[in-house]
Amino acid sequence: MLNKKRPIGIFDSGLGGLTVFKALRRQLPGEDIIYFGDTARVPYGTKSPEAVIAFSEEIAAFLFKKKIKLLVVACNTASSLALDEVRRISPVPVLGVILPGVEAALKAAPRGGRILVTGTSATVKSRAYSRALAAAGAGVRVTEKACPLFVPLVEEGWCGKPVALTVAREYLSPFRKKNIDALILGCTHYPMLKSVIARVMGPRTCIVDSAHYAALGARAELEGRGLLNPGRRGRSEFIVSDAPERFSALAGRLLGIKTGKVAIKRF
Amino acid sequence: MLNKKRPIGIFDSGLGGLTVFKALRRQLPGEDIIYFGDTARVPYGTKSPEAVIAFSEEIAAFLFKKKIKLLVVACNTASSLALDEVRRISPVPVLGVILPGVEAALKAAPRGGRILVTGTSATVKSRAYSRALAAAGAGVRVTEKACPLFVPLVEEGWCGKPVALTVAREYLSPFRKKNIDALILGCTHYPMLKSVIARVMGPRTCIVDSAHYAALGARAELEGRGLLNPGRRGRSEFIVSDAPERFSALAGRLLGIKTGKVAIKRF
Repeated sequence: MLNKKRPIGIFDSGLGGLTVFKALRRQLPGEDIIYFGDTARVPYGTKSPEAVIAFSEEIAAFLFKKKIKLLVVACNTASSLALDEVRRISPVPVLGVILPGVEAALKAAPRGGRILVTGTSATVKSRAYSRALAAAGAGVRVTEKACPLFVPLVEEGWCGKPVALTVAREYLSPFRKKNIDALILGCTHYPMLKSVIARVMGPRTCIVDSAHYAALGARAELEGRGLLNPGRRGRSEFIVSDAPERFSALAGRLLGIKTGKVAIKRF
Repeated sequence: MLNKKRPIGIFDSGLGGLTVFKALRRQLPGEDIIYFGDTARVPYGTKSPEAVIAFSEEIAAFLFKKKIKLLVVACNTASSLALDEVRRISPVPVLGVILPGVEAALKAAPRGGRILVTGTSATVKSRAYSRALAAAGAGVRVTEKACPLFVPLVEEGWCGKPVALTVAREYLSPFRKKNIDALILGCTHYPMLKSVIARVMGPRTCIVDSAHYAALGARAELEGRGLLNPGRRGRSEFIVSDAPERFSALAGRLLGIKTGKVAIKRF
C-alpha cells in the first residue's frame, strides 16, 4: 500500500538531475525527496543502452527498498533508454523527463512547425524524443543535435563566460535561421545554459526546460492518486555512488542547493 | 617465467590511452599489445581515489590473466592514484605515465625554472606530478591546472576549430606571461591539442607529451630485462568495457588507428 507520507525517489547519472530536484522541490514543498546520483559511472551519455539499462535497474531497485511512492527518472539518457525496463520491475509509478518536455514543446510549435532537440550523444542516438514527438501525432518536423561539451561547460561554472557562447554557437548557430519554434533542453544540465542558448537561437525560438514540466507532471500524478503529502516542509536526502564532497560542492556552487551530508552507496 | 613472446598490456579509462598505444607501437613494432579501455566507467578524472584504485586493480587482474610481460598504466589519473596498489598485486613490471613526463619536463626546465602541469581534476587534485617533480629534487617551481573541457573537445573532433583555441585560452592564457619553461600534457587526450596549446603558451614553453616518453620508458624496461620481442609485426588487440563501436570509430577518426573488431569485457 502506498501512502502519502512516503518519499519520492529521483535519480540521475550525476548531479544534472538536481535541476529536476529543484523544480520538484518548488512544486512539491511538502514531500520528502530522496535523490540518487550515480557519480561513480557518470556520464551515461556515451554509454551503451545495455549499460544504461543495467545501471538504471540497479538504482531503481535500491530506491524501491527505501519505500518510495513515486520514482522520477531525471536523467534524459536513462529516460530515453531504460524507462520501460524500470517500469517493468517497479511497484510504483515511474515518470521520465522525455514526455513532459515533448508536451511542452508541442504547445510552442504549431502543426507543421519545427522542433530542435538537444541532448547527450546517447539521448540523441536513442531518438527517444523524435519517437515521442511522432507518437504525439502533431505533424512537427524534428531535428536532434548532440552537444557533448555542454555538460563539462556547466560543471566548470562557465555558463556566464564568453566561451559558453562560443561553444553554443558552434553547436547551434546552423539552426538559427531554420525557423525553429521550440528547442528542447534534453539534458538535465542544459537549463543552466538556457540564456546562452536562447541568445544563439534568437527570440523566435521557445526554449523548453523539461525539468519544470517533469515536476508539474509529478505533481499531477500524485494529486491524481491522492498521494500528495499535506506536510509543510519536506526533507531532502542525497545519496551518490562516489565522491560525495564534489557533489555537495557543485550542488551548492551551480544550483545553490545545500545538500547537508551526502551519503554513499557503492554498487 | 616471463618470456619475449608475451604481450604488453596497457589500459586507460577510455580511448585517450590510444595516444600511448600509438607511441608504443612506434617504438616497439615487434610487440603484441593488448589495450583495455574502461569505456563503461570513463572518465576517471572526476572519480574518487577509492573508485579509481578499485577499477585499476580489477583491470590489471584481468590483464594478468592474459599472461602479459609488462603493464603500462596509460591513464594519468590511474597512474596518479593507483600505481602503488597495482604494483602490489602485479607479477610483472608496471609503468605509469607520470614519471616519464616528469623526466622530460626536467630536461626542458633549468634549476629554478617553472613547470605547468595540465590534466584532469583528479590528476591535479592528487598532486602526483608536483610530488614526483619535488622528489626529483630539481628545485623547479610547479603549478598545476585542471582543464576538464579538453577531453570532450578532443572527442568531439574539434581540435582544429576556433573553439579549441577559445577553450585553451580560457584555461591557459593567464600562464602565458609567467615564463613557463615546460608544460606537461598530463592527460592522454591532450597530445591531440598540442599545437593549440603551444599557440596559447607561445614559443618559450616546451610542450611535453608524456605518451612519447612513456613509450621510450617501456622500450628501455624491456631491453633492460632482455624481454624485447624480436618479431617484425606485432599484433594489436583491443578490449573495452562498453560501446565497442564508438571506441573503434573514434580510434579511427581521431588517431587513424584501425582497431579491427573490438572485444567487450564487462565488470
